[in-house]
Amino acid sequence: MINNQIYLDNSATTKPYDEVTDFMKLIGSTCYGNPSSMHSMGLKAQMLIKEARASVAETIGARSKEIYFTSGGTESNNLAIAGYIEANPRNGKHIITSSIEHPSVLEVIKYLERKGFKADYIRPDVSGKVKIEELSNALRPDTVLVSIMYINNETGSLQPIREIGNIIRKSNPKTVFHSDAVQAYGKIALNPENDNISLMSFSSHKIHGPKGAGALYVNKSVRIKPILLGGGQEYGIRSGTENVIGICGFGMAARVCHEHLESNNEHCSKLKEILKEGILKNIENTVVISDKNSSPYILNVSFPGITSEVLLHSLEQKNIFISAGAACHSNKSGKSYVLAEMGCDKKTADGAVRISLSMFSTEDEIRQVIKELTEIVPILRALKQKGCKR
Amino acid sequence: MINNQIYLDNSATTKPYDEVTDFMKLIGSTCYGNPSSMHSMGLKAQMLIKEARASVAETIGARSKEIYFTSGGTESNNLAIAGYIEANPRNGKHIITSSIEHPSVLEVIKYLERKGFKADYIRPDVSGKVKIEELSNALRPDTVLVSIMYINNETGSLQPIREIGNIIRKSNPKTVFHSDAVQAYGKIALNPENDNISLMSFSSHKIHGPKGAGALYVNKSVRIKPILLGGGQEYGIRSGTENVIGICGFGMAARVCHEHLESNNEHCSKLKEILKEGILKNIENTVVISDKNSSPYILNVSFPGITSEVLLHSLEQKNIFISAGAACHSNKSGKSYVLAEMGCDKKTADGAVRISLSMFSTEDEIRQVIKELTEIVPILRALKQKGCKR
Repeated sequence: MINNQIYLDNSATTKPYDEVTDFMKLIGSTCYGNPSSMHSMGLKAQMLIKEARASVAETIGARSKEIYFTSGGTESNNLAIAGYIEANPRNGKHIITSSIEHPSVLEVIKYLERKGFKADYIRPDVSGKVKIEELSNALRPDTVLVSIMYINNETGSLQPIREIGNIIRKSNPKTVFHSDAVQAYGKIALNPENDNISLMSFSSHKIHGPKGAGALYVNKSVRIKPILLGGGQEYGIRSGTENVIGICGFGMAARVCHEHLESNNEHCSKLKEILKEGILKNIENTVVISDKNSSPYILNVSFPGITSEVLLHSLEQKNIFISAGAACHSNKSGKSYVLAEMGCDKKTADGAVRISLSMFSTEDEIRQVIKELTEIVPILRALKQKGCKR
Repeated sequence: MINNQIYLDNSATTKPYDEVTDFMKLIGSTCYGNPSSMHSMGLKAQMLIKEARASVAETIGARSKEIYFTSGGTESNNLAIAGYIEANPRNGKHIITSSIEHPSVLEVIKYLERKGFKADYIRPDVSGKVKIEELSNALRPDTVLVSIMYINNETGSLQPIREIGNIIRKSNPKTVFHSDAVQAYGKIALNPENDNISLMSFSSHKIHGPKGAGALYVNKSVRIKPILLGGGQEYGIRSGTENVIGICGFGMAARVCHEHLESNNEHCSKLKEILKEGILKNIENTVVISDKNSSPYILNVSFPGITSEVLLHSLEQKNIFISAGAACHSNKSGKSYVLAEMGCDKKTADGAVRISLSMFSTEDEIRQVIKELTEIVPILRALKQKGCKR
């Protein structure tokens, strides 16, 4: 428990490791050279970035030169899609994605549609998994790019990435596969090359690193163009003086979380099971939205008859922090397009919350959450039935 | 003196204030919520960003809503130009800039030229100032945007911004004026509205804030479109989870440096004068490139007969850090397009170095630099004459 807070909104963002904030402070105070400066203070900053790049590369079995640092997951997704399209104008005008991608994927593809591209948005089944057959049927000779996220940020559904990679490879070796792995990186073992993924996006602040840093993996065989132009940093792919403090924090977080990848995974799997069983046992009429094979870090669960925002604020009074959906966009309507696409009825969607774990989550915290939910949910249901606005 | 280092490359980047790194550490450890989260931890992060936004706005006499946070000066410049052009497709196809802008301005305009825009690149006079008459003559009814930097990063030349603003206003009220103020912000008092500037770019790491943060001022009357698409953060103009730690550091740095704006300015003016006089007095055949009215923070000076990189590395042996040109791009050829545009002969350009000050610079440091230069320059000249490769 951190400052008596039970923080279970780790898919929105995570607490930076102490090692990370300490390292960032040290770098900020002592290694403040500009990596582009020709003197040793510049070189030192350059070496720090090189180290961070090697750290990130190592965690996914990639070469250092395949890792480009960005300002975060959103920029990585934008750069992957727009940068690939810009660099390969003759590879086709058709894009495939899913209807449950993060807005930083969907909005770029909608933008490209306005510029003359065609796009297919593959829908998920009831479990939140993208329909493989639909995707397979949508592939065309002029499909330039397929973008499917690794793990959905709202439901935790693990997408059939390897299968999709194989289908793409067989259908058209020229079609490039991008995966937004922001919710998967640092949670499960990833190797983009093995999955036929040419472009993969990562975010620092989802793995106990700082916000404002991320990376894009670009397979060595693939060429992209920058979206930010200028001094030519990051091998010409991402101009702008490097966020040295943020990149160092990200590199450190990547190392630390991958040291404990498996044990963290087991730890969260166990907690998620306790949470799910506890809720199902104690609160009647509960719908578990996250499917069996979803991320151990995310439980999406609905209490039909309540409004998720109200539950969120009620739990907040008890120092418990969860989410009514994804936090990564400023649309605060609370209406989840992900659940809608999965075919969730309105009542279930309205009562859905996301409880997302981290390696710092404890069994005591989970039991406390079950206790509070067991008390609060029936009260909120009764109040809502009475037509009380709360 | 910091760790016995005489750091005089402050136009490349600055040492973050201790208050800044302390604050960043505090935020990273305690206020790690996602500003888009609906609970109080998200709200707290939101409030921190609001505070930083107000701080930056206040320093330039702007409204909070006119400040958009970005990942730095490069992104601010890209967003200003590409974002304005994208949002105003009917305002014309002609752009005016100078030939001595930062690459993050020049490269975007070159990109737009490839997309069908026309651009005029106004050259500077021998003092490094953009030729006003040429600029005035270049203005056309279809000039959509003029982008002229406030202070040049290599020579410190202060551009005739107010005059340019007036000329644009009179010529075509629809033409929008952007100024890259990365080297001016926190050094001299700025008020974009007074200068008829609609778009102005700032960087955090040039004012003792962290790298990876910056801002764009967008006058309330002007509409721009985002270049990073997604969750719609920063009022829809800059998607991506906010770099809370970086933004807080930037806000703090903005406050601290503006508290001492005038005294810092006087301090550096005095040191620059001592440096210039000392060099001119002690080293024969010296060419001061920075003109009389240039930034108090930058002295560009040439010792014809030496190679600037060699001098840079020689000074480095004495723990003195300067620049052989701009550090903000990874092109390390050492050839300065800025000096070339000013009409500098090759020998003068080859021997030019940039010494850039900060509020932390001391008179002792400056006297030490004069002493070392006085010793080293004649030796390097003699070695070069003998054809020694060093």
